[in-house]
Amino acid sequence: MKLGGLGEFGLVSRIASASKQGFGVATGIGDDAAVTVLTPGMQLLTSTDMLLEDVHFRLAWHDPFRLGRKSLAVNLSDIAAMGGIPRWALLCLAIPADIPIDFLDEFTRGFLTMADEHGVSLVGGDTCASVGGLVITVTIMGEQLPDIILSRSAAMPGDDIWVTGTLGDAALGLKLLEGDKIPSSQGVGSDYLVSRLLDPTPRVSVGLALSGTCLATAMIDISDGFLADFGHIAEQSGVGGLIRLADIPLSVQFNSLASQLTDDPQVLALSGGEDYELCFTAPPVNREKIAYRTKKCGVTATPVGIVTNLPGVNVINEDGSPFNTTTDGFKHFT
Amino acid sequence: MKLGGLGEFGLVSRIASASKQGFGVATGIGDDAAVTVLTPGMQLLTSTDMLLEDVHFRLAWHDPFRLGRKSLAVNLSDIAAMGGIPRWALLCLAIPADIPIDFLDEFTRGFLTMADEHGVSLVGGDTCASVGGLVITVTIMGEQLPDIILSRSAAMPGDDIWVTGTLGDAALGLKLLEGDKIPSSQGVGSDYLVSRLLDPTPRVSVGLALSGTCLATAMIDISDGFLADFGHIAEQSGVGGLIRLADIPLSVQFNSLASQLTDDPQVLALSGGEDYELCFTAPPVNREKIAYRTKKCGVTATPVGIVTNLPGVNVINEDGSPFNTTTDGFKHFT
Repeated sequence: MKLGGLGEFGLVSRIASASKQGFGVATGIGDDAAVTVLTPGMQLLTSTDMLLEDVHFRLAWHDPFRLGRKSLAVNLSDIAAMGGIPRWALLCLAIPADIPIDFLDEFTRGFLTMADEHGVSLVGGDTCASVGGLVITVTIMGEQLPDIILSRSAAMPGDDIWVTGTLGDAALGLKLLEGDKIPSSQGVGSDYLVSRLLDPTPRVSVGLALSGTCLATAMIDISDGFLADFGHIAEQSGVGGLIRLADIPLSVQFNSLASQLTDDPQVLALSGGEDYELCFTAPPVNREKIAYRTKKCGVTATPVGIVTNLPGVNVINEDGSPFNTTTDGFKHFT
Repeated sequence: MKLGGLGEFGLVSRIASASKQGFGVATGIGDDAAVTVLTPGMQLLTSTDMLLEDVHFRLAWHDPFRLGRKSLAVNLSDIAAMGGIPRWALLCLAIPADIPIDFLDEFTRGFLTMADEHGVSLVGGDTCASVGGLVITVTIMGEQLPDIILSRSAAMPGDDIWVTGTLGDAALGLKLLEGDKIPSSQGVGSDYLVSRLLDPTPRVSVGLALSGTCLATAMIDISDGFLADFGHIAEQSGVGGLIRLADIPLSVQFNSLASQLTDDPQVLALSGGEDYELCFTAPPVNREKIAYRTKKCGVTATPVGIVTNLPGVNVINEDGSPFNTTTDGFKHFT
């Protein structure tokens, strides 16, 4: 069945009937605006991301279920980076005429599965016909007590620089897909790497653990690449950073496949986008508590450098010599 | 100057530096999420709309300044329809490589002019490269006391059906543009009609006057066409409606040009989209007070029919005979 047979209002009803309305929803899908209720004393956190066909995703690579999950995940990652509690989402879809209903049903199922995993209610959005490719815009709303919201701008010289999980997996997954190689032909690790790109896990629980315990000073999610994203913390905090290359956490799968797929595995780990891990800064005295708290969330966190009071972000080899890289993350329009 | 010379972060800085941060903004553009503060006791209103090049607008018709204004106006109209106070906006732009910086500067100026007129702060968004046309997604946030928020679902049989302003102007403006006629060659009225399409005025003050005085029972904005939009009130309130064709308010400009541009001026007024007027229902006892309150906002409101307890929305001629129309508003995917 094609979309034309269902119509705009049919599609909206179909999505609405699949959605559960959870915490704080006074009016969900179906009025001019959604009406929601914040927890008294909390502030509102909002973020929005666009995903465009053939810019952010290719339909040849992204099955609709995981595309639906990822559309929300990249937004959840922004709430995680503030240490916030995700609550409500709005979903906009501009849909080419040849997209089948089955695709949209699977997309919606993926989106709502991710929403359920994080207690998020889909409360509104917009659907329209596209004369170009598929366009997805998601707006996420969350909340948190003002005193514990983590910004990018409060890193202090002397703080450790931390990252969650491992870096470069999603970028290596992209290289696998770009090489037109069937992932499984590259060994078991390739499925993992591709899945890191297509179905990222937003670190919401880690974000909440860090905000709730006041252990971190600044935080950002790693979407453009670690160096670029830590660079935002450095710039907005008026500090610099020294990164120890040898401490950058890499997955077993990355280590086993990277040298076959790129001449510069280290650059890929430092600069590859879309890992959706968290990068945060914290006083060294908190090191053990952070390791404990993040482990309780099922995530490893690793100190990879130190915040300095010198301008710029520099990477050093194990012997202390400078590691030179000119790549600093994905940028649009360049 | 093309966008490539400025880059993604350059563009964001350029937009951010032009934005004022007003009511309730704790953290505006530049972190992972915006942080804003609702008025205690108020609920959050959120709505989002996508505007796609060659679906919702054509660059040949829409100058960037008015396109920027309209991008926010159509969202403000949704907050108006709830009787809400607009507060904050997020702006997503997917930008083709050949769009000049001047275009984006004018677009931003238009957007921020509309924001200023309604006390709205731009607090975040997303920018990316587009391989298709220009895509604009705006999310608007507002607030209101829960007891006075106006929904679509509380119209009562016996209520008057009201509309603000005049109907069909934007649809006639579109006919002027589609006819490739220079508006001014159609007489002075054509500029007005085209401007109603390209630079609509969201009826925020009227929405607030109606919610604040508790004079109305249900409300919606007229974006898809009067019959379609009142149809949403009827469906969601479980009521019907009888519309008096002779009472539909038409502008002088509409009356002077409609017969030259369409065989069915009345159908255009009943079903043409994008007027962004308000349609609301209210007990007849409130008629004088409503006329007074809306006039104080500089807007005329007109009772055009009555809510019934029969299913369906019917239009009648002055002699009481049925007016037959099969058109009921713009729908995507059909």
